[in-house]
Amino acid sequence: MTLDNTQCRLAARPIGLPKPSDWEVVDEPVPNPSDGEFVVRVEYLSVDPAMRTWMNAGRSYVPPVGIGEVMRAGGIGRVIDSRHPDFAVGDEVFCMFGVQRYALSDGAGVTPVDTTLAPAPVHLGLLGISGLTAYFGLLDVGRPQPGQTVVVSGAAGSVGSVVGQIARINGCRAIGIAGGADKCRWLVDELGFDAAIDYKAGDLRAGLKQHAPHGIDVFFDNVGGVALEAALSRLARGARVVLCGAISQYNATGEPRGPANYMQLLVARASMTGFVIFDYADRYAEGVVHLAKWLHGGELRSHEQVVHGDVGDFPEVLLSLFRGHNTGKLVFALDPGVGP
Amino acid sequence: MTLDNTQCRLAARPIGLPKPSDWEVVDEPVPNPSDGEFVVRVEYLSVDPAMRTWMNAGRSYVPPVGIGEVMRAGGIGRVIDSRHPDFAVGDEVFCMFGVQRYALSDGAGVTPVDTTLAPAPVHLGLLGISGLTAYFGLLDVGRPQPGQTVVVSGAAGSVGSVVGQIARINGCRAIGIAGGADKCRWLVDELGFDAAIDYKAGDLRAGLKQHAPHGIDVFFDNVGGVALEAALSRLARGARVVLCGAISQYNATGEPRGPANYMQLLVARASMTGFVIFDYADRYAEGVVHLAKWLHGGELRSHEQVVHGDVGDFPEVLLSLFRGHNTGKLVFALDPGVGP
Repeated sequence: MTLDNTQCRLAARPIGLPKPSDWEVVDEPVPNPSDGEFVVRVEYLSVDPAMRTWMNAGRSYVPPVGIGEVMRAGGIGRVIDSRHPDFAVGDEVFCMFGVQRYALSDGAGVTPVDTTLAPAPVHLGLLGISGLTAYFGLLDVGRPQPGQTVVVSGAAGSVGSVVGQIARINGCRAIGIAGGADKCRWLVDELGFDAAIDYKAGDLRAGLKQHAPHGIDVFFDNVGGVALEAALSRLARGARVVLCGAISQYNATGEPRGPANYMQLLVARASMTGFVIFDYADRYAEGVVHLAKWLHGGELRSHEQVVHGDVGDFPEVLLSLFRGHNTGKLVFALDPGVGP
Repeated sequence: MTLDNTQCRLAARPIGLPKPSDWEVVDEPVPNPSDGEFVVRVEYLSVDPAMRTWMNAGRSYVPPVGIGEVMRAGGIGRVIDSRHPDFAVGDEVFCMFGVQRYALSDGAGVTPVDTTLAPAPVHLGLLGISGLTAYFGLLDVGRPQPGQTVVVSGAAGSVGSVVGQIARINGCRAIGIAGGADKCRWLVDELGFDAAIDYKAGDLRAGLKQHAPHGIDVFFDNVGGVALEAALSRLARGARVVLCGAISQYNATGEPRGPANYMQLLVARASMTGFVIFDYADRYAEGVVHLAKWLHGGELRSHEQVVHGDVGDFPEVLLSLFRGHNTGKLVFALDPGVGP
């Protein structure tokens, strides 16, 4: 039997929010694996703001997705056919499989997923790139000391929600910036943040002044724009700004907004440092050990929002990220179709 | 005899370039020193871009100069009257004496100036705050390694011209950004920069691509604006951006321009760090020892542009900084008037 592989390919470079014509959904037969290859049926895809940046031309930390190429995405799936000695039918594995139903692999970059440790979506979130980004970004780049104040933007997102919790575990005061009263309540009541500021409700700067009266020691930025500027104006002496993302700018159609008050870095003798989680690949195991220990010890809560659909629904799922409706890790579960 | 002290006071907070009505030039009698005080006749004033920032209200690294207060300025002068045990008539001293002909002092913050080591203007420039800013900013914040590429903006200025030379002394490739062909020639021919890019002549980004083909390891920024953006787009992996100043923004009447491409810090895994030279006060001696050694060894060249005038000419001298006409350190020599 020949399986149909549905793929979501990039058809054009989006200007602003991706529109339907920027995508092409195509079917092609799943190739038979040659010696040293195997076929994975993709079950879960990680949906992340950074994906929007991968769709742009120009210099970035990874090459852009080419026009006509399958959209890049991290995914977890099950091996359904194998001629590879290290991967057996039934194995659950992670890789950048892309937005497609089936992926042919030679094993490069593929890691096993232990679903007895946690369900697959957790391996895409807290125990995956999102959690590792929070772990290394906060601890290695932000270097918070116990008693210091950590502020994180995009706090209700997959990375931000973990950053605040790790800050608390490390004896810091954790303040989240998020959009909406529900998200803010969730951060404080469910995740244990010391405070959360609803940037949609009013004066972000006043909120930071109230909740970080002695200034911000570490600002972990997922958002950019006005959140970054508000934080820069409240930095404590010697503060560290961790640049993780800039979701507010990813769909800008004009020139992105740089922080007009960046010279506050001088006033505060502060630093702003960019990092890319892939550079920590040789330390992932260290991060996962800590994250899993905190998760199982009840110190760290994982939250995934799992959305079900077909490959062709991916463009709409990606857009939902930028509408700000999700909390925690957004995972796209591919509904079972025809096939094994 | 009662001496007349001419003072240049701040009369209003400037919007954009300071205009005559932002200043008030007044005469008042020089007070007689009480026990533990002395009077200095100010001979040389340091004229620096940062002065413009001291005139603004709002949070900065020093309190703003108050309306009606004597304009803050570093100066060198001679003690003409003393009832202080540590300061004798004839002593040459440095302090933030302000833009005035005479200053009354209790000795706080006053340091002796050894004019046998170098003439007074050099003590305001290479052996003063300008040279120390270059020394600690480049070596302590920028941390260049031999063989790396150092780019400095405002390269023909009092700090930038020293930064490039120290970079060369440390085995780095030094590239200056300056305005005008004459300044660029001076940097290369006289100061030994490897290259200089005239940002007024054309494409700054193309110039950086040509002269820093492997990227910029340290960018020492005195200018901000388009210079900062051009440098951010050429950072090498792990680069350090040293924020020293932003002269292009000091007289902006609208919102200052933040670097729109600041997320290049993430792409390059780079950091941008602000520093204030006053934090290095307990290490000034270390810096001066090195700077003086290089100066006397011929490895480091000092260049001062000394402009003569009366206290009332100060506003015009300050403006000349922002017209971009000076090279090296701008020193304002107060012409001898009536008095000792």
